Amino acid sequence: MSKPYVIGIDIGGTNTVFGIVDARGHVVASDSIKTKKHVNFDDYVAELHEGIMRIVKANEAEDKIQGIGIGAPNGNYYTGEIINPPNLPWGPVIPLAQKVSKAFDGIPVAVTNDANAAALGEMTYGAARGMKDFIMITLGTGVGSGIVVNGQLVYGHDGFAGELGHVIVKRNNGRICGCGRTGCLEAYCSATGVARTAREFLEVRTEPSTLRNLQIEDITSKDVYEAAIAGDKMAQEIFTYTGTILGEAFADMVAFSSPQAIILFGGLAKSGDLLLKPLKEAFDKSILPIFRGGTKVILSELKESDAAVLGASALGWEAKFKYESPVAASFDRGLPVERDEQPTATGK
Amino acid sequence: MSKPYVIGIDIGGTNTVFGIVDARGHVVASDSIKTKKHVNFDDYVAELHEGIMRIVKANEAEDKIQGIGIGAPNGNYYTGEIINPPNLPWGPVIPLAQKVSKAFDGIPVAVTNDANAAALGEMTYGAARGMKDFIMITLGTGVGSGIVVNGQLVYGHDGFAGELGHVIVKRNNGRICGCGRTGCLEAYCSATGVARTAREFLEVRTEPSTLRNLQIEDITSKDVYEAAIAGDKMAQEIFTYTGTILGEAFADMVAFSSPQAIILFGGLAKSGDLLLKPLKEAFDKSILPIFRGGTKVILSELKESDAAVLGASALGWEAKFKYESPVAASFDRGLPVERDEQPTATGK
Repeated sequence: MSKPYVIGIDIGGTNTVFGIVDARGHVVASDSIKTKKHVNFDDYVAELHEGIMRIVKANEAEDKIQGIGIGAPNGNYYTGEIINPPNLPWGPVIPLAQKVSKAFDGIPVAVTNDANAAALGEMTYGAARGMKDFIMITLGTGVGSGIVVNGQLVYGHDGFAGELGHVIVKRNNGRICGCGRTGCLEAYCSATGVARTAREFLEVRTEPSTLRNLQIEDITSKDVYEAAIAGDKMAQEIFTYTGTILGEAFADMVAFSSPQAIILFGGLAKSGDLLLKPLKEAFDKSILPIFRGGTKVILSELKESDAAVLGASALGWEAKFKYESPVAASFDRGLPVERDEQPTATGK
Repeated sequence: MSKPYVIGIDIGGTNTVFGIVDARGHVVASDSIKTKKHVNFDDYVAELHEGIMRIVKANEAEDKIQGIGIGAPNGNYYTGEIINPPNLPWGPVIPLAQKVSKAFDGIPVAVTNDANAAALGEMTYGAARGMKDFIMITLGTGVGSGIVVNGQLVYGHDGFAGELGHVIVKRNNGRICGCGRTGCLEAYCSATGVARTAREFLEVRTEPSTLRNLQIEDITSKDVYEAAIAGDKMAQEIFTYTGTILGEAFADMVAFSSPQAIILFGGLAKSGDLLLKPLKEAFDKSILPIFRGGTKVILSELKESDAAVLGASALGWEAKFKYESPVAASFDRGLPVERDEQPTATGK
C-alpha cells in the first residue's frame, strides 16, 4: 500500500524549497531554507530535516510519507549523489540520498537533476500528462533539459543524459560557454545568453536603441524584454535571434527522439511571442520533412512557484533507496542501482 | 512457449535478403530475391513467401516459426507500413506487415527501418550485448541510426525517431542533402558524402593527387579509400575531414542520451584508422567534460553478410501483429498499436 504523501525537495543555488504533495499533485504545505547557510553538509541536512518535519507534524503526516524526491543541479539518479555541482559548497561528491534517507529514519529517497525533475513534474501533473515522448527545455540562467522516451526519463548509462543546453549551435567562432567549450546552445539561449547577445548587438551595430541608456555590462534579459515590449527594434531582434537559434536546435532534437512535444519552462519561456514566434518559424523551416507538423512546441502548465517541488515530488512515489546501515547502503558510490528499478513516475 | 526459429527479412533497394534464425543468432538458412522485379506489391510478397517457404521446408521448420521481423527503409514500427520510401516502386504507403502476415497464414510480423534493425541485431547478437544505452550509426550510401535507451529502441511518438543522418553539421553554406535541406550529417559522412568531398577538394585545391587521374564525376568513396591506403595525402585528408565531422556530431549525440557506446556499421566503417583516428580525436575534443571517456566508439561485431537478416530477425521474437481478417487487422493505418507492446528484443 502506498502512503498518501510524498516530499518534494528542490535544491537551488540560493534556496532549497520543499513541500508535502498528495497523489493529485496538490502541494499540501511548503517552506524553504537558504541553501548556502551551512558550509558543512550534515548541518544543511539537519536544518532541512527540521524544516520538513515542522510542516509534516503540522499536517499530522508523520506516518504518511511514501518517499522523498529531490531535484538538484548535477543530481545523479543512479548513485543518489550530487557530482561536481557548479554552485554548491559541499565538495565534489555529495552523498545526498544516503544522508537524507538516514535523517528520515530510512524513508526511501530518489535524486535527479533539476531539469529531469521538471520533466517528471510535467509528465505527472502538467502539460505532458499522457505523453510518452517529450522533451522539457528549461530556459533559465542556463539551458537545461529532461528527455522522456517511451514513458521513461532518459538517464543514459551514467545518469547524466539530457544535456541539451550543451549541443553545439555555432561550430565556428562560437561564444565561450561555462562548460569550457564554445558554441553551446546555452551560451546563446539562456537568460545570460540573451544579455550577451544584447551586449554584442550594442557593440557591433550602430542603430539607436533604448538599451544604450543602460550600463552595457549590467544589461539583463529582463531589460531586453522590457525594451522589446516597449517597441525597441534592436531588443526585438535580440529575441528573434534567440528564438531562431532555439528553433534550429529543436529541429535536431526531433531527429533524435521524435517527441510529441517540446515543452518550455523557466523565465525566458515567459517572453511570449517575442521568443515563440521566431522560434516556431525557425523550427518549422528547419525540421526534416518527415517530422513536419508532428511535434508541438508548448509552454509548461505548472505554476512556477510549485513546479520545482512538484517535479521533485513526482520522483518520490517510487523512490527505492533506503538508508539501512553504512554497509547495506546500496547507493554507495560504485554500486549503481539495478537499471530495472527505474520508476516511471505514474504518480500513483 | 516460444517456437525455435524466427524469419528475418531485409528489404534493400536492390536485394531482399531473408533467413531462418535460431535463438542463438545462427542463420540456419538464407536466400534472396530481387526487390524491384515486381511493380505490383502483391506479386513481390508472393515471390518472397515462396522463397521463404522453400528454405523453411528444406529445414523442416513449417511449424517452428515464432515470428517474422522485417527491416525496410522508412519501415514504421507502429503501423507496420513502409511510408514514402525513396527507392521502392510500390507507392507511398505500403501495408507490409499486413500483407506478409496474411501470406504466412497469420504468423506475427514486426517491421522497423533498416538502421533500427541493425541496432536490434547488435543488441541481441553483436557488440551491444548487455548494453542498455547505445547508438548504432550506419555509414552506407546514406547515414542511418538506431538509438537504444534503457534497453528499448527509440521510436518516438510516430515511429520515425532516430534520423541522426539528418542533424545539421553545417549551419551556413551547407551542402544540399537528399532530404531537401542543407548541411545534414549525411551530406558529408556517407559514402556519397566522401565522394562529394573528394570532388570539392579536387576543384578547390591545387596540390597533386592520384585522384586527379580519375574522371571527377565518377569518383567513389572506394576510390578515395584506395588512394588513401596507397599514401595519397589528399585522399587521407578527405577521411580526416569526414571523421572530424562525425566525431563532432557524435559529441552532440552523447549530450542527448549518454550512451555506453556508439557503434559503427556499414561500408565506410571498414575504413579503419583512416576514419576512426580523426573521428575519435574530434569526439574526445568536442565532448562535454562530464561525459569524457564514458562513451566508446566501436565497430559492429556482426558479419556483414548476416547482419541485415539477423537484425531484422531479432524483431521477430516478440512480433505481435497477426493478420486475422481485414476488420480485425490492428495494424491498419490510423490504428497505431498500444505503446506498451513494444518488444525489448531479449531474443528469448
